[in-house]
Amino acid sequence: MPQSFHQTTLANGLTIIAEADADAASSAAGFFVKTGARDERSPVMGVSHFLEHMMFKGTHDITADELNRAFDEIGARNNAYTSSEMTCFYAHTLPEHLPRGLDLLGRMMRPALRQADFDTEKGVILEEIAMYKDNPFWVLYEATIETHYGTHPMSHRVLGTDQTITDLKRDEMQAYFDFRYSADNTVVALAGQLDFDAAVKQIDALCGRWTRTGAKRDGPAPRAIGGDLRLTSDKVTRGYMLYLCSGPSVSDERRYGAALLAQVLGASDNSRLHWALVETGLAEEAQAAYDGHDGIGDYYVYASGDPARLDEIAAAIDKELLGLVDSLTEDDLERLRNKIATGAALGGERPGDQMQRLGRVWTSLGKRIPLEEEVDRINRVTLDEIRGVARDFPIRPVTMGRLVPA
Amino acid sequence: MPQSFHQTTLANGLTIIAEADADAASSAAGFFVKTGARDERSPVMGVSHFLEHMMFKGTHDITADELNRAFDEIGARNNAYTSSEMTCFYAHTLPEHLPRGLDLLGRMMRPALRQADFDTEKGVILEEIAMYKDNPFWVLYEATIETHYGTHPMSHRVLGTDQTITDLKRDEMQAYFDFRYSADNTVVALAGQLDFDAAVKQIDALCGRWTRTGAKRDGPAPRAIGGDLRLTSDKVTRGYMLYLCSGPSVSDERRYGAALLAQVLGASDNSRLHWALVETGLAEEAQAAYDGHDGIGDYYVYASGDPARLDEIAAAIDKELLGLVDSLTEDDLERLRNKIATGAALGGERPGDQMQRLGRVWTSLGKRIPLEEEVDRINRVTLDEIRGVARDFPIRPVTMGRLVPA
Repeated sequence: MPQSFHQTTLANGLTIIAEADADAASSAAGFFVKTGARDERSPVMGVSHFLEHMMFKGTHDITADELNRAFDEIGARNNAYTSSEMTCFYAHTLPEHLPRGLDLLGRMMRPALRQADFDTEKGVILEEIAMYKDNPFWVLYEATIETHYGTHPMSHRVLGTDQTITDLKRDEMQAYFDFRYSADNTVVALAGQLDFDAAVKQIDALCGRWTRTGAKRDGPAPRAIGGDLRLTSDKVTRGYMLYLCSGPSVSDERRYGAALLAQVLGASDNSRLHWALVETGLAEEAQAAYDGHDGIGDYYVYASGDPARLDEIAAAIDKELLGLVDSLTEDDLERLRNKIATGAALGGERPGDQMQRLGRVWTSLGKRIPLEEEVDRINRVTLDEIRGVARDFPIRPVTMGRLVPA
Repeated sequence: MPQSFHQTTLANGLTIIAEADADAASSAAGFFVKTGARDERSPVMGVSHFLEHMMFKGTHDITADELNRAFDEIGARNNAYTSSEMTCFYAHTLPEHLPRGLDLLGRMMRPALRQADFDTEKGVILEEIAMYKDNPFWVLYEATIETHYGTHPMSHRVLGTDQTITDLKRDEMQAYFDFRYSADNTVVALAGQLDFDAAVKQIDALCGRWTRTGAKRDGPAPRAIGGDLRLTSDKVTRGYMLYLCSGPSVSDERRYGAALLAQVLGASDNSRLHWALVETGLAEEAQAAYDGHDGIGDYYVYASGDPARLDEIAAAIDKELLGLVDSLTEDDLERLRNKIATGAALGGERPGDQMQRLGRVWTSLGKRIPLEEEVDRINRVTLDEIRGVARDFPIRPVTMGRLVPA
């Protein structure tokens, strides 16, 4: 297939990368800013996500309505998201509309942040926070993360709290924007059918005068504190439990073994937890996952079920955790390798997926890892390597959260 | 691109259809059975979905564990779903594993339905029903559908109720399976890289002896009854509202106009409801959609927000509904056309999506509608046509449901 990788950095530090594919039927572009909830001062917790909303309110030259209509006019599928680690603004378009899509993305990245829009949108954010209070898993997740990371900003809620959002000032958001949304803290990722040189020229014209601020993620290294917490709510019917355990960071070579270990334990189908808890009817859901962050990583173990049987569910999980390493077989690995190969084929089929992977990996690691290279690396993970990872980072709960009916 | 459509029907009435693409990097296969919650007798409500779970418990020759491991060994991404209208079992694989994937799907379609598995899985289903009680939108949706369709089986809950699932007998499920999962009520859809003749030969060997039962959807025609309902719950924090309105059926040519009308009103971004309710901070969510079923169709209008402002939210929605037709412009249509073109390009990129579309359209309509043809048809919808659809099927609530804190 006529695919090629391209990369350049503008004079102000803005990096542009692309997986071009002349045969693709669509194109995708995303602006990835390496900033999120963990990069906020605690009093302005939630500013990254609130700012993400404000980016759609237009620039000094374009109203919110004009911006949204302009994306619509080219039939773009555009959106944005904010995590603890990064904020991304993206658009999927037909190839002939990519230049206009890039133009709109580039312009919206320098928003007006008008006071009136800020005041209105604050209400929207507070409503969003209120709505998540009806989601039992979310309530438990946010509280558990806080217990897990204590006062480190890794504990921040992406949405912020009623208090921090209510108190937030427009000028604080502007200051956060000016420093964090700098050229040298942003990556533009492209994929699908595209002309890289033309895209670079266009992005340089749009973004070449953005300032360089030297924004870094340079606070204290994250560390898991941990503890137990037990929440009750008259709003839930079922019992929910969440374990957080320490794992390798996103740049740690042991992340591959950690990801495989978590999959054997708790993939949504055909895992140890699935067979022991879900198939037997003991729990409704029982899953585990590994997630690597900048400087630290987490394993999650999650289950829900009859509140009266939550101790029994916990005991069954503990049993699987204890027996996990000794029960690992070559057969477990072989099945995972095949799944990973299929996942890689499926994940590489759409320019939108290629662009997301490219942008996220670059934002996290500052480099490209071709999909084939990563699949190959995962396929070379041995049982001994996984056992070593399980010794260094055992899946043992550091934080245990429960949410049960009052 | 080297794409081609294929179709054949076996002697027993089983239809096999394929969108082959020699350049695709993956393959997809799905068995679509034209049976769902609306095809159940009310006392066994939920049997379709419960049966879907039981299909994964193995056959007379294969245990559940063996079946699941066999899918895993080839790295298949396989799953199933049940709706009111149909039940689908599918797998995405690398092209070299498609024959084995088909083999496993074909075998699992003739399950053992063992009493012991039935008893265990009944607990799993009851847990699933319990879990959904923590989801406010789901609670409101199920109750509103019941008010809307009264005693017609269109009112059935896909999961069933505590009562119907508790009372269900294995023999009742077997009888439902024997009649509804017949060769002539099933379609096999394939997409991606595949050898159609080889697939047909294989499916004939696997499924050629399935019986033909003449299963049809031949109950009374569905009709909306409607009414108001107001639920209170001490488990919710926000207020939720759902309108159901009558629309054209899935086979009615007016469905294209209805879909566009609903999008102008309530697409998730840039719609009348979005600008009037979400952007202003009045509601957290405010959306509308059109869904065509066999013999009838629905428009949904959905919003959530501060319970104290629910009347205000309803008034704002009513205002948008009243002004909708007169405010339609050529500009609205032009923007939608571009979105649809992009959606078509994105929706046609993956064999998994192509297979799903092919199987669903065939199961609903008994024919293929190529993606390009449908996009072209939608692009030819005129303002006059939409106004005509809005006269025949106005978006006026037949059923109004609310869920608010107790």
